[in-house]
Amino acid sequence: MNSIGVVVRLTLFGSSHGPGVGAVLDGIPGGIKISEESIQQELDLRRPSPGIGTERAEEDRVQVLAGLVNGMTTGGPMQFYIANKDRDSSKYLKFKTTPRPGHADYPALVKYGEGHDIRGGGQFSGRMTAPIVAAGAVAKTLLRRNGIEIAAYSKSIGRVEDEAEHPLPELLEARKNPVRSASSETAALMEREILEAKEQQDSVGGVVRCLAFDLPVGAGEPFFDTLEGELSKMIFAIPGVKGIEFGSGFSAARSRGSQNNDPFEIQGDRVVTSTNHAGGVLGGLSNGMPLDLKVAFKPTASIGLEQESVDLEARRSARLKIEGRHDPCIVPRAVVVVEAAVALVLADLCMRGGYIAR
Amino acid sequence: MNSIGVVVRLTLFGSSHGPGVGAVLDGIPGGIKISEESIQQELDLRRPSPGIGTERAEEDRVQVLAGLVNGMTTGGPMQFYIANKDRDSSKYLKFKTTPRPGHADYPALVKYGEGHDIRGGGQFSGRMTAPIVAAGAVAKTLLRRNGIEIAAYSKSIGRVEDEAEHPLPELLEARKNPVRSASSETAALMEREILEAKEQQDSVGGVVRCLAFDLPVGAGEPFFDTLEGELSKMIFAIPGVKGIEFGSGFSAARSRGSQNNDPFEIQGDRVVTSTNHAGGVLGGLSNGMPLDLKVAFKPTASIGLEQESVDLEARRSARLKIEGRHDPCIVPRAVVVVEAAVALVLADLCMRGGYIAR
Amino acid sequence: MNSIGVVVRLTLFGSSHGPGVGAVLDGIPGGIKISEESIQQELDLRRPSPGIGTERAEEDRVQVLAGLVNGMTTGGPMQFYIANKDRDSSKYLKFKTTPRPGHADYPALVKYGEGHDIRGGGQFSGRMTAPIVAAGAVAKTLLRRNGIEIAAYSKSIGRVEDEAEHPLPELLEARKNPVRSASSETAALMEREILEAKEQQDSVGGVVRCLAFDLPVGAGEPFFDTLEGELSKMIFAIPGVKGIEFGSGFSAARSRGSQNNDPFEIQGDRVVTSTNHAGGVLGGLSNGMPLDLKVAFKPTASIGLEQESVDLEARRSARLKIEGRHDPCIVPRAVVVVEAAVALVLADLCMRGGYIAR
Amino acid sequence: MNSIGVVVRLTLFGSSHGPGVGAVLDGIPGGIKISEESIQQELDLRRPSPGIGTERAEEDRVQVLAGLVNGMTTGGPMQFYIANKDRDSSKYLKFKTTPRPGHADYPALVKYGEGHDIRGGGQFSGRMTAPIVAAGAVAKTLLRRNGIEIAAYSKSIGRVEDEAEHPLPELLEARKNPVRSASSETAALMEREILEAKEQQDSVGGVVRCLAFDLPVGAGEPFFDTLEGELSKMIFAIPGVKGIEFGSGFSAARSRGSQNNDPFEIQGDRVVTSTNHAGGVLGGLSNGMPLDLKVAFKPTASIGLEQESVDLEARRSARLKIEGRHDPCIVPRAVVVVEAAVALVLADLCMRGGYIAR
Repeated sequence: MNSIGVVVRLTLFGSSHGPGVGAVLDGIPGGIKISEESIQQELDLRRPSPGIGTERAEEDRVQVLAGLVNGMTTGGPMQFYIANKDRDSSKYLKFKTTPRPGHADYPALVKYGEGHDIRGGGQFSGRMTAPIVAAGAVAKTLLRRNGIEIAAYSKSIGRVEDEAEHPLPELLEARKNPVRSASSETAALMEREILEAKEQQDSVGGVVRCLAFDLPVGAGEPFFDTLEGELSKMIFAIPGVKGIEFGSGFSAARSRGSQNNDPFEIQGDRVVTSTNHAGGVLGGLSNGMPLDLKVAFKPTASIGLEQESVDLEARRSARLKIEGRHDPCIVPRAVVVVEAAVALVLADLCMRGGYIAR
Repeated sequence: MNSIGVVVRLTLFGSSHGPGVGAVLDGIPGGIKISEESIQQELDLRRPSPGIGTERAEEDRVQVLAGLVNGMTTGGPMQFYIANKDRDSSKYLKFKTTPRPGHADYPALVKYGEGHDIRGGGQFSGRMTAPIVAAGAVAKTLLRRNGIEIAAYSKSIGRVEDEAEHPLPELLEARKNPVRSASSETAALMEREILEAKEQQDSVGGVVRCLAFDLPVGAGEPFFDTLEGELSKMIFAIPGVKGIEFGSGFSAARSRGSQNNDPFEIQGDRVVTSTNHAGGVLGGLSNGMPLDLKVAFKPTASIGLEQESVDLEARRSARLKIEGRHDPCIVPRAVVVVEAAVALVLADLCMRGGYIAR
Repeated sequence: MNSIGVVVRLTLFGSSHGPGVGAVLDGIPGGIKISEESIQQELDLRRPSPGIGTERAEEDRVQVLAGLVNGMTTGGPMQFYIANKDRDSSKYLKFKTTPRPGHADYPALVKYGEGHDIRGGGQFSGRMTAPIVAAGAVAKTLLRRNGIEIAAYSKSIGRVEDEAEHPLPELLEARKNPVRSASSETAALMEREILEAKEQQDSVGGVVRCLAFDLPVGAGEPFFDTLEGELSKMIFAIPGVKGIEFGSGFSAARSRGSQNNDPFEIQGDRVVTSTNHAGGVLGGLSNGMPLDLKVAFKPTASIGLEQESVDLEARRSARLKIEGRHDPCIVPRAVVVVEAAVALVLADLCMRGGYIAR
Repeated sequence: MNSIGVVVRLTLFGSSHGPGVGAVLDGIPGGIKISEESIQQELDLRRPSPGIGTERAEEDRVQVLAGLVNGMTTGGPMQFYIANKDRDSSKYLKFKTTPRPGHADYPALVKYGEGHDIRGGGQFSGRMTAPIVAAGAVAKTLLRRNGIEIAAYSKSIGRVEDEAEHPLPELLEARKNPVRSASSETAALMEREILEAKEQQDSVGGVVRCLAFDLPVGAGEPFFDTLEGELSKMIFAIPGVKGIEFGSGFSAARSRGSQNNDPFEIQGDRVVTSTNHAGGVLGGLSNGMPLDLKVAFKPTASIGLEQESVDLEARRSARLKIEGRHDPCIVPRAVVVVEAAVALVLADLCMRGGYIAR
């Protein structure tokens, strides 16, 4: 299904090869000031960075077709539309016979049969994340008005990992360098890691970490619509994601309760925990500490190196070389997508819980 | 919300302290043979193992109140009910003033206020997983009739990790040892790891790995109801889960595309991949290879050691000692819960996709 | 599916022949005072009235299994359970061969096949409305706290129709006479109409009218989750309903716009309409005037007279005589069910729209 | 919310004043042959008929942006887009101060506040039914491939009522006359009724009856997702609807069980009923007889006569004259909308029940 959310609800439409992609965003309260430029700025962060990204030129101009009049939300459903420019799809046809390793081609062909629209990856294309970013820009504005700030960055790219903790201002700096690193030193190493893969016609993965500050205590719904569950469902819609963890995550599995439990303490008039192994979530609910999640992205499936595949018609093995320019690393572009996805889920859960007034 | 699923839909009811817990399971086709005993056997796997588990004696007898007549499903909604026996709740009242670290007490108190029913953890209790196991037994039977087999085991407990790959018969052996290990050698080490934590009044976490064999190619729905997204949402409803990954997961983030892409090959009349870094999922759809997911559980939050907390009324720090017997490691009991959760999601996606006839 | 609602969400479980029927009610805010006795009083209104109703003795004692502690809602899911007493189901078995006219027997047998649990009507039984009434009692209390009052009555029974408009106090009087009439004169005529049908071993239908006062302007959601659409979906779940109309309803279809449009006027500090042909709804949203809906109930399908049916095995016509005592008119008992159904939908839409604080 | 349906799921986007309106239709199986021309033909039936309809010239050219390649469905989500041509919205601004009687202006202004986009009725506009018709054309094709045929007609317009029963060929003739009457005699009377109202600058309502033939026995889901409940929810999304009834509907309320119960009989190899008071539905499930529903439309709210309203700013009464050309009767245009709405719900319930293969 192409919809997600309960009170703040997103529906995607379009595909990478049709005239454009877009989204309907239901449930945003009226009267929120937001400019089309600020939405466009978010989309610009999703564009490939010069040098390290693909050279395909998608301009990605967003149009807000409804729900925003004179820079203010109307309370009705919002609609975003982003026209497709680069639509040469002839090169995709051979993948109907010889599916690309690591792509959805093979299961989609089996699922949809003869009619499957493989061009540009169709509805499986990473391009579907563009309208998520546009809708996420609105969700972020709604959250910010309610004191909630979201920031993501590239925690690791390939073998380069940033082990440091960063305060919010440093996190926001990540928007300014091409790899979305929260540290300028790491940024240089990450860029080199990407360029090295690129030179070898290969690709590299990485981890995006996203933090959300000052969530209301209690956001999230038991038993199934937990903060982690709702976020995970949304995050796994982003192409290339293979794992997600909250707080200490997989390393919690190796630890003791006495180490991993976060002790409570009073800080001014707030109840906080002195550590944040929980990543801001207890029992599926926000505990008021920073929400802290990490998302693992696999290396881009499209690489220049020749690969082993099969000829589905001849039923025999076939070698495949994917032409064209592809992102050697999707992680820097994914940072703003993760932020948007997180913002949309948090806006929904905050509205559902009555933490944000309608 | 207490419901999950679209065509096969589960709703939980009850709480750890009320008269019982149960579930409604909609969407199971009529005419499937299943005995109450086989459902009970699954529930028995969720009971604490002697020696390494809590000594609280919950008998957990399941009653099937509807949807099963003369050992055959009726096609109507099924209902499961498990009476609560051990209901001494007086000991929970102090947690309303002094919340337990690592538990939902604090955010639930803020969310629900004065009226919050904290006894036994209420709706946040691990006891809510008992009806999931009962419903999961039906989902497993439905899947097995369609050639799909699910098996989970303890991949790691604390510092002890099982690095081996196991064929299905070995995986099924895991049901026979108390720690649910797929290898008898590792089983002994894991048991020691748990007992050591227990002796120190501490607890330990671990990783459950679950595999599903012979899924139809194409199961899962783009864009949001992906195989990974739907599974994750369900899995994060299990108390104590902090992370999930598919296939190579977080280690994919450190690899190159040329390593991580699984080459296709023809094997007999099937298209397979020679490796399974994808964990059986491409573009949110099953690719026919074994579904392979790992779930990180944190160490049990309830430990015997004294912990730092706060007195919410006096607004000052307070030390807390949790009385009673608790599981030093939840992982062995969680293995059958993960299997059930996975079975319910796969049954729903297979029914939605028309891979299983109604 | 056995669930309805988005923020205030109801799930039914049980069936007329199993051990009991019940409901889970998610989304009710914590801290609302409500006694089990007041819930029971609503259920008592659903019991057959002496003389005009069936003589089967269902006591219908409601238990609140969760979500209510010390007379106050906890904020967690509420659960209601009503044990079944009268469970002689042997008489239902013949309907598997010879379906009852006007009942769900035939399509349910085709849909569910061999396994269909026909006893007592199973999940199609009017008995499933008992937990709706219990949950509705909570929804009514929630609405009343927010100034919204709901009242229904028997507008017509068979050929006897009450054409008058009644103020709220008269409507509440309807609870005191056995036919739930808002006028004592009509009450006598309606009772006679029912008794006449009963003597002839026949049954009679009728119309329930329900009004809701002082709804917030704007409740309801375009485009699909309109006030009328959400109410209708819920109302058609009540067995025996064949039609619903709002305001002037079907008679609006025969009128002119100049007659049917309700002129606006200022009354004190409120904007009202001088007529209420709209029944309180414009564009799917509450306009602040009384919500006014009418529900058509068919005559009870179970009658004592012999009827034409078929023998599904022998594939030939067969005459059928239904034994036992049945309600000659379901309408009086349905009045409180309609109120409950309306209350649940309004509570959901008011919570979704932020008109009632969480 | 702008979405409806479970397996076949429709999401609307756009508004009457933006660049266009459209819909996303999820869940349609791949491999169905359908031409854009056949979708366009359905939309053409929604256009105003010369003489009796509005003279505003909306061309309503549908574009299928995704999900249809070379005249065959792909199995992915389908997308329809209809550009808006006639967008002079200046005349709507005064309704923000002086709401039109019978329109959503007043509650929408209260609900959405300052930001409400009133132009052209915004998301409350009848124009939103255009994409429903486009999506409905696909649903009809899917149903027809499975032997199910849908046909609606104007049963009454104002005081003119067509009391006859019509076989399918006559029903299909309704598409050929401007008032969508199934009888040429009634057609003339209906046209006169509309023209008379038009001359008087007034409007008139009517009833659309819709039949669906050869539905599989068992379609529909208890307890809440009944055939009647799901249809009603969809139908009430059509602007102007005030009532719905199935089979004998409101007249059943005045009848006896012995008259209203439909006796079963064997006809060839089928089980049928000799009458169809049930309108093809028993217990919320299709019984295989023709589905028979009637929908009451109020007279068009926009009339040329001066009306009483209020000045919301000055808080005093104000007279209002609505300029421009409006449909004096919406019923003829609504016939194809009702067909589409019914087709979409039936397609969803047939897919959900497994009556139509994926």
